[in-house]
Amino acid sequence: MQGHRFTPPPAPPEPTGAESLDAWGFRDSAFTVLPSGNVQLTGSRYELSGVELPYLLPWIRRVMAIELPVADTHESHYPPEIPPSRANLPFQSEIRGLLAEDAISDDAMVRLRHGHGHTLEEMYSIRHGRLERVPDLVVYPGSEEQVTAIVEAAARHDVCLVPYGGGTNVTDALRCPVEEERTIVSVDLSRLNRILWIDPANLMAGIEAGAVGRHLQAELARHGFTLGHEPDSVEFSTLGGWIATHASGMKKNRYGNIEDLVLDVRVVTAQGILSRPAVAPRESAGLDPRRWLFGSEGTLGIITSAVVKIFPLPEVQRYDSVLFPAFENGVRFLYDLTREARPPASVRLVDNLQFQLGQTLKPASRGAKALISKAQKFFVTRIKGFDPDRMVACTFLYEGSPDQVAAEQAGVARLARRHGGMRAGAENGRRGYQLTFGIAYIRDFVMKHWILGESFETSVPWSKALELADNVKRRIHDEYAARGLPGKPFATCRVTQVYQTGVCIYFYFGFYHKGMQDPARVYAELEHAARDEILKSGGSLSHHHGVGKIRQRFLPRVFSRTALEWAAEFKRAVDPGNLFGISNQAMTSDRERIVHD
Amino acid sequence: MQGHRFTPPPAPPEPTGAESLDAWGFRDSAFTVLPSGNVQLTGSRYELSGVELPYLLPWIRRVMAIELPVADTHESHYPPEIPPSRANLPFQSEIRGLLAEDAISDDAMVRLRHGHGHTLEEMYSIRHGRLERVPDLVVYPGSEEQVTAIVEAAARHDVCLVPYGGGTNVTDALRCPVEEERTIVSVDLSRLNRILWIDPANLMAGIEAGAVGRHLQAELARHGFTLGHEPDSVEFSTLGGWIATHASGMKKNRYGNIEDLVLDVRVVTAQGILSRPAVAPRESAGLDPRRWLFGSEGTLGIITSAVVKIFPLPEVQRYDSVLFPAFENGVRFLYDLTREARPPASVRLVDNLQFQLGQTLKPASRGAKALISKAQKFFVTRIKGFDPDRMVACTFLYEGSPDQVAAEQAGVARLARRHGGMRAGAENGRRGYQLTFGIAYIRDFVMKHWILGESFETSVPWSKALELADNVKRRIHDEYAARGLPGKPFATCRVTQVYQTGVCIYFYFGFYHKGMQDPARVYAELEHAARDEILKSGGSLSHHHGVGKIRQRFLPRVFSRTALEWAAEFKRAVDPGNLFGISNQAMTSDRERIVHD
Repeated sequence: MQGHRFTPPPAPPEPTGAESLDAWGFRDSAFTVLPSGNVQLTGSRYELSGVELPYLLPWIRRVMAIELPVADTHESHYPPEIPPSRANLPFQSEIRGLLAEDAISDDAMVRLRHGHGHTLEEMYSIRHGRLERVPDLVVYPGSEEQVTAIVEAAARHDVCLVPYGGGTNVTDALRCPVEEERTIVSVDLSRLNRILWIDPANLMAGIEAGAVGRHLQAELARHGFTLGHEPDSVEFSTLGGWIATHASGMKKNRYGNIEDLVLDVRVVTAQGILSRPAVAPRESAGLDPRRWLFGSEGTLGIITSAVVKIFPLPEVQRYDSVLFPAFENGVRFLYDLTREARPPASVRLVDNLQFQLGQTLKPASRGAKALISKAQKFFVTRIKGFDPDRMVACTFLYEGSPDQVAAEQAGVARLARRHGGMRAGAENGRRGYQLTFGIAYIRDFVMKHWILGESFETSVPWSKALELADNVKRRIHDEYAARGLPGKPFATCRVTQVYQTGVCIYFYFGFYHKGMQDPARVYAELEHAARDEILKSGGSLSHHHGVGKIRQRFLPRVFSRTALEWAAEFKRAVDPGNLFGISNQAMTSDRERIVHD
Repeated sequence: MQGHRFTPPPAPPEPTGAESLDAWGFRDSAFTVLPSGNVQLTGSRYELSGVELPYLLPWIRRVMAIELPVADTHESHYPPEIPPSRANLPFQSEIRGLLAEDAISDDAMVRLRHGHGHTLEEMYSIRHGRLERVPDLVVYPGSEEQVTAIVEAAARHDVCLVPYGGGTNVTDALRCPVEEERTIVSVDLSRLNRILWIDPANLMAGIEAGAVGRHLQAELARHGFTLGHEPDSVEFSTLGGWIATHASGMKKNRYGNIEDLVLDVRVVTAQGILSRPAVAPRESAGLDPRRWLFGSEGTLGIITSAVVKIFPLPEVQRYDSVLFPAFENGVRFLYDLTREARPPASVRLVDNLQFQLGQTLKPASRGAKALISKAQKFFVTRIKGFDPDRMVACTFLYEGSPDQVAAEQAGVARLARRHGGMRAGAENGRRGYQLTFGIAYIRDFVMKHWILGESFETSVPWSKALELADNVKRRIHDEYAARGLPGKPFATCRVTQVYQTGVCIYFYFGFYHKGMQDPARVYAELEHAARDEILKSGGSLSHHHGVGKIRQRFLPRVFSRTALEWAAEFKRAVDPGNLFGISNQAMTSDRERIVHD
C-alpha cells in the first residue's frame, strides 16, 4: 500500500496532423472494389486484410433498393480549395521565439485537417465542396509551459485559439466560425501525449491531454493497468477530448464513463491555470471548476493533463454473443439484465439491419456460405423460429476475475433463456464488438459510391426505448419517401449502453444521392428531422457526442432559458475576450443550418 | 418495462423550524445523568431508551484524564439573546399577499434556529454566547411557484435570501454575515417535502428538495424502493441540502454518492428557473448548469426538486462486524477489499478509541460485564493476542440479493482472515452502524459537562491514510499539550468510505474546558491546526461536509488562484445582485477566524 509513483518512459511521438490524414480512412484506404466486383478489406489494421467480402455490395443494393454499379464512383476532389492563411505577424513573430520551427505550421493541408471533424457534412465538404474557414496556423506545444505562453501571446495579439485533440468529433465542433475575423490558431496537443506518472498503490495515473486512446491503453497495459475507457473513436481520440466532450466508453459498466474516471484536470485558461495541488478520491470542495470542463468542447481553455483512475488489467477478457428472435426480446433481456444481474463490461444489442450488415462483412472463405440469398433458409431451418428479417444479436465483452466473469456469464445465460435467446459464440461477439471501430471506414468507403451516411445517438429511459427506435427509423423513411428520393434510406440502430434508468441508442442512417440536387441539404434536413423525432420521443440531445455546432439550435428545447443564460454568462465571465472562440454551444452559429422547425 | 409513473400520497408535513428545535438533541434530550451517576438514554428514537449506561462516564474520565463530576454542569443559557429582526416592510407586505399567515414567521426562536447549523462554535454560541446576526424573517413556501414569487419579490426589494433545508451543516454554512445590511430571509423548504412521482419502470423518482432523509426513505420503502443515500444526518437533512453540499452516504458502495444519484435538478435562481423538460440516463449536453449546483451551498439559488435514481429494496439486509488487532490491519484489510473483492454497501473501520467508546455505550444489562476495568482481561484471555488498547472493529452492512450478499460475505471472510481479523457478529455490526447517528447526541450531552467536541473529515489516497490519521491525532495532542490545557484531548477517527483510490477518514475531537479563558478560541485554533495537518499530510479539504465558512480560508491551499477566480466570477455573473448572499466559499468571511497560518 506504499505509494511510490513511477514515471514511465515517454510514449512514441504521435503522427502530426498531416501524417494522420489517411488514418481515419477518408481516403478510402480501408476498402477496395476488386475487378470481380467484390469488396476487399485493405486497411492495415484489419485482421482480414486482403480478404474478399462478397456479400457487402449485393446486400446494400437490396436494402437500399438501388443499383449501385461499382464502376460509377463519385470521385472525391479532395483536397478542396483551402482558404488562405490570415496572418497575425506580431503573434507569429512572438511564438517563433517560443516554439521550435517544426512546432508551427501554416501548411494548407495541415490547416485543412485541423478545420474539421467527422460529420458527414464536413466529409462531404472536403471531398466535393470546400470549407469556408479553416485555422490560419497550427501550433504543436510540447509542454504546459508552451501552452501557457501560446495562450498569453494569443491574448496579447487578439488571436482566436482552438484546442485540437484527435479531430474525431461528429458535432462540427472544430468547424471554424466563418465570421471570425481574428487569426485562428489550432493548438494541436499531439506532442502532449505522455503518461507522466503511474501510482500503482492508489490506482491513479497522471496523463497528458493529447495522449491518444490506443497509445495510452497500450502504454498502461505494459505496466499492468488499463483506463478502461474505450469510446468508438479510441484509435484516434484523446484524453483531453474525452473530457471536453463528456465521453462515454463501451466498457463503462465496469469502468464508468469519463466523469467517473477523471479525478483532476489541469487547464490553461484565459485567466491562468486551473489546477489543484493534490488529488483526492472524492471531495466536497464547493463550486469546483474542474467539473465545468466536462462538455466544454474547447470553449473554456486548453486541458493539458488529467489525473485518472486506473485499474489492474482484468485476469479474464472474454467475448460472447446471443441471438434473439427480435429487437424487442433483446431490449427486454437487457432490461432484466440491469435489474437481476450484473451486466458485463460491455453489452450491445444491434437491430436486425445491423445484424445483417455484420453478416455481410464476413469473408466468403469462412463458413458463411448461407448468407444473403441463402441466409433465410439457413437460419429458418437451423435456428427454428428465428426470422432472418427480424432476428438480432447481442454482443458481450466480459472483463474481470474468473469468478466475476463466471457469475456474469451465468446471469446472461439465465436471462437470455428467459427471452428466447440462443448463444452464438465468442467469435461473433468479438466481431460485433470490433465492427464498431470499422463503421467509420465503411461510411467513408460507400461515400465513394454515392452513399452518404452518418451516426447520431441519444439516451432515453427504458420505457420509451423501443418506441423511440421505431419512431426515428420511421420518421427517416417517411421524410425520405415524402421527398420522392431514390431507393430507400438505410436506418439502423443499436443499444450501446445500459443503465438502471435507460439506454443509449446509437443510430446509423444513409441514403443514395446520385442525381440529387443538393445532397448535403437533404442530409441536413433528414438529420434534423431524426433529431426532432428523438426529442419528441423522450430522448436526450446527446448521450456522448455532445453539442458542438450541429446540435446547438436544439438547446432551447432541452434547457430552460435561464440554464442557457447561465452557460453563456459563465463563458463571458471566464473568457471575456472570447480567446477560445470556436463557438460551440454558442447559439449563434457561424452558419444557419438547413432545418424546418 | 412500461413506464407508468404513479404519484404517491403527500408525505406527512414536516415539523416547522420551531418544533424541530429539540430534534437534534441540543437540549440534551438524548441522555440524562441519573442519581446513581450513570447515564441513561432517553431519546425516544433509541431502542435502548431508559437503559442505564454505566461505562460511559468512567471511560471518559479515564481517557481524558479529568474528574468530570456529574453534578458540575455547564448550564446552557439557551436561548441566547437574539438580535432584533430588521424589517423590510415593502418586501413583507408583498409576501403577505403571496403566502398564508402560517408560512411567515419573525418569531425570535424560529429566526435563531434558522441562523445556525451544528458546528461546535455555533452550538457553543447559542448556549453560552450569542449569534450576532440571524435571519430577520423565515418563510415556508409550499410550492415552486411560491419560491419563485419570493425570489422575485426579494430581488425587487433588495432582500438577501438563504435556502434552509435540515439545518444540519457543520461548516457554518447558515451563519449569517454580520456585515449584511439587507433584510435576511431564510427560505425554509420543509413544506416542499413531497415525493412527486415514482417511475418504477425506469427506477426514477421526482422528489421535492425539502424532503427529509428519513421521511423520503420511509415513503419510498412503502412503495418497495430506496434511494440508498444515508448520510450520518439522514434523520434531519434534506435532498436539496445533499445536493448543495455534495453529500456522501454511508452506503455509497452500493448506491453511489449524491452526484451519482441525481439525474436532474430544478432551481429557482436570480435569473429564473434552471430546468430541463426531460430526464435522460446520461447525457453530453455541453456546459450543463445542473452540475454546478453540487457544492453550491446556498449561494446560487434555491433547489426546489430533483429527479433521482431509486432502487428496489434489497432482498437481504445484514449487519456484521470483524475485530482486527490494530488499526493498520484494518486499513490493509480494507485496501485488499477494494482490490480483490466487492465491498459491501457500507464498510466502516473505527480506531481503538472509538471502538472503546462503542463498548461504553452498551448497557450493563446486556452481557457487557467485562467492560473498562475488566475489559482488558476479558479480551486478552478470550481473544488471544488482541490488545484492548489497540484492537479495532470494522462494521459491515450488506444489501442485495442473497447471492450478492453471500459473495460479498465470502470476500470479507477471506480477506479478514488474511489480516488477522476475527468475526464479531451481526449485533456488533448493527450497533457500530447505528452509533453514527448517536454521536451528535453524545456531543451535545457532554457539552453540558464542560466537554467541547466536533467532527471533521477528509479524503486521502490509500498510501497516505495511516500516516494522515496518526499525524492529525498527534498534532491535536501536541497543540493541546503546548498550551498547558487540562487533561488530555479526545481524538479518534474512523474510515467511513472506501474507494479504489483512497478513503474518507472521519475524525472526532474533544476536550474538557472548565477553567479555560476562551474555549471557543482554543477550539478554533485546534481545529485549524488539525485541518492544516490534514492538508500537509495529503488529505483533501473535505470529503462531504463542504466548505461553508469554516473552511473558506483554506481554499487558496487547495485551488489555484484561477480556479477561485472562476468560481467568484461565475457567482457574480449569475447572481449579480448577490441575492443569495450567505457568503459561503466567498473568501471574504464576515468574521476573521482565529488561525495561525
